[in-house]
Amino acid sequence: MQTMSLRLMLEVAPDVRETLVKNLFWIDRGITGVELSGDVPPVLTVTCTDDSDADEIEAQVLADVTKMVAQAATVCPRTVYETQPCHGEPLAADEVCRRLEERGWLSMELSGSHVYAGLMAELYYGLDRAFGRRARGLGAQEVHLPSLLGADTLVTSGYLHGNAHMGNYVFHLHEDRSAVARFTEKCVTDTGGIDLSGLETSADVPEAVLSPAACQPVYRMLAGRTVATPFVTTGYVRCYRYESGATHGLRRSREFGVREIVYVGTERGAADFRAQLIGVAREFLDRFELWGSLVTASDPFFTDTSADYRVYQLALELKHEVQLGLGGDRVAAASVNQHGDHFGRAWDIRAGNTNERAHSCCMGFGIDRWCLAVFSQFGFDVRSWPRALREVVGV
Amino acid sequence: MQTMSLRLMLEVAPDVRETLVKNLFWIDRGITGVELSGDVPPVLTVTCTDDSDADEIEAQVLADVTKMVAQAATVCPRTVYETQPCHGEPLAADEVCRRLEERGWLSMELSGSHVYAGLMAELYYGLDRAFGRRARGLGAQEVHLPSLLGADTLVTSGYLHGNAHMGNYVFHLHEDRSAVARFTEKCVTDTGGIDLSGLETSADVPEAVLSPAACQPVYRMLAGRTVATPFVTTGYVRCYRYESGATHGLRRSREFGVREIVYVGTERGAADFRAQLIGVAREFLDRFELWGSLVTASDPFFTDTSADYRVYQLALELKHEVQLGLGGDRVAAASVNQHGDHFGRAWDIRAGNTNERAHSCCMGFGIDRWCLAVFSQFGFDVRSWPRALREVVGV
Repeated sequence: MQTMSLRLMLEVAPDVRETLVKNLFWIDRGITGVELSGDVPPVLTVTCTDDSDADEIEAQVLADVTKMVAQAATVCPRTVYETQPCHGEPLAADEVCRRLEERGWLSMELSGSHVYAGLMAELYYGLDRAFGRRARGLGAQEVHLPSLLGADTLVTSGYLHGNAHMGNYVFHLHEDRSAVARFTEKCVTDTGGIDLSGLETSADVPEAVLSPAACQPVYRMLAGRTVATPFVTTGYVRCYRYESGATHGLRRSREFGVREIVYVGTERGAADFRAQLIGVAREFLDRFELWGSLVTASDPFFTDTSADYRVYQLALELKHEVQLGLGGDRVAAASVNQHGDHFGRAWDIRAGNTNERAHSCCMGFGIDRWCLAVFSQFGFDVRSWPRALREVVGV
Repeated sequence: MQTMSLRLMLEVAPDVRETLVKNLFWIDRGITGVELSGDVPPVLTVTCTDDSDADEIEAQVLADVTKMVAQAATVCPRTVYETQPCHGEPLAADEVCRRLEERGWLSMELSGSHVYAGLMAELYYGLDRAFGRRARGLGAQEVHLPSLLGADTLVTSGYLHGNAHMGNYVFHLHEDRSAVARFTEKCVTDTGGIDLSGLETSADVPEAVLSPAACQPVYRMLAGRTVATPFVTTGYVRCYRYESGATHGLRRSREFGVREIVYVGTERGAADFRAQLIGVAREFLDRFELWGSLVTASDPFFTDTSADYRVYQLALELKHEVQLGLGGDRVAAASVNQHGDHFGRAWDIRAGNTNERAHSCCMGFGIDRWCLAVFSQFGFDVRSWPRALREVVGV
């Protein structure tokens, strides 16, 4: 194992820290760890396997950091709202997971995928109900969204153009029963995993991608249609992102649950609804007495390919994020997104009486991360939780 | 396109019809359609592409049909309970889907994956709540189950040995940012799909498989543990099976929702709990005034590799299935499964005071198929539904 440490000379904007760490993993498969310390200015530590070309990696890391930090300095997130009720110091995310595991409430199925039990499961389902109820209060109709999306859905919407690396691609074995009959003998490895290299599969042309963002199939459903009155829906769905070496516990899972609210209508209607959604974000911070903030934000971006989009999103305040406090840290747990007519154009959706190109906005609650923050801030004894959270779990 | 028709000389047991059709697709990738008529004895029609070797396929089809039908004749399912309330003739599944689509309540995202809206979505969520409430009435604690399972989980449990062909395997692109940066130019095809053949990916050694059966991760969670008191849980999860050419609308989806109840405990405890679950199956047939039956059944089996298991399951009555009437047809919508100590052995789980090998049983409700049957039997106007179903959707 080789390790390189770099003390950066510039501060790294808080919203860029995670993106920076995630992107560095994509320089080379040999990179096994990337850490950015909390110091000002921070120390960056990159670990890679012995057979990696450390000099080449170091040069790339330096080039990347320089580019990203410089670009990020041009525009900064703005804090719109902040809450800091006094409940003592939140527990760090790793410590929350350790204590949940100790109680049998959290169990890892595979890196980034977990089983929840006990109070963790009750809180998870309860929060989804609470968010769903609030969505219906805004006039949203229930929809059920699938996780298995057509690859063409994510090409048409533009998602894969900048985010192919986060995709979880789905394939199947090609029809050939002699191969299937010999599966155990041919494909089960000594370590109990599987190796399909001898089989014909659809992996080169995967027909499906696991939903990386809950709202994607809604626009496809409306393709070519005119929504005379606003189409306002809410649904629950599990989403999936491959996060490479940055995958970590409940803080950054590969599979996570989302309660989504989607609005499709006129430009004016979408702007008004977006304002309501921002209100909902503030409301939940207050109602649950959580330590957190509402800030303008940008989507994770991939080195140069979509870094400009961050500036665009921040400058126009197209994305707001609810961030919840963990011990010495915070986690993005919900976002409100203004899409303009992006999806209206991609899917030829029109709206209103004048048949204008449809505009849309959405809000997604990352339920697992709300759970993480609740345990971090209020502990494991439900009787000491704020009243609104006790109600969520029916206590 | 080439077509071959065979009038079979033997009847095909009802529980073998679907398995037969599904298995025939696996003879050759060139097979594009398999249909088994409702006549007695039935006519089997197989369609294949022009460049297929039709003689070879016909020989294989004949050999398969002979083997499966003969073997299936040795033991038959037994009907345990039947309901046939008088609500008129149920609509055929295809007609239900057509009318749901017409109303905007059903929209295909990709073959086997759908968005639900309107009454379809309300019924879907409502049924899950109803099944979940009943499960808690049996003392089940809520769990949340993931869909992304480790390939090793399904190897250890034995699932992949007989069912590798039904797997939805998940992979990601290997870390290489030049490939990602050129994704759009290299991998997006003219038809708007993707072709990853030029990229390095984890497809040969996929790290995850989408959950084919909800209860699988529960046993892994309990691996090596002793459950002193019975471990009784209920959870909701989306499950996934690749059904090749047999994929069809809501009747046979690639992605579907399951409300699961799992019991892990002593042999005696599991037997008693299984009896309660069979009672729950009867109860829902009655409560919802559905036309259906409870029958002994077997898991789908793959030609020769696991056909013996059908005889074993049926002879020992290890599996019960709730089948709901559709127009001239029926669909399996729930099952109760007695596992013996299969998972206790696979995962080294022990139970009770005497530390015996744990036994388990489970019940899974295929929520999407309950929805299909409700619309088939009661139509699209909620006001004419039985009272218990109106309550499910809050009307």
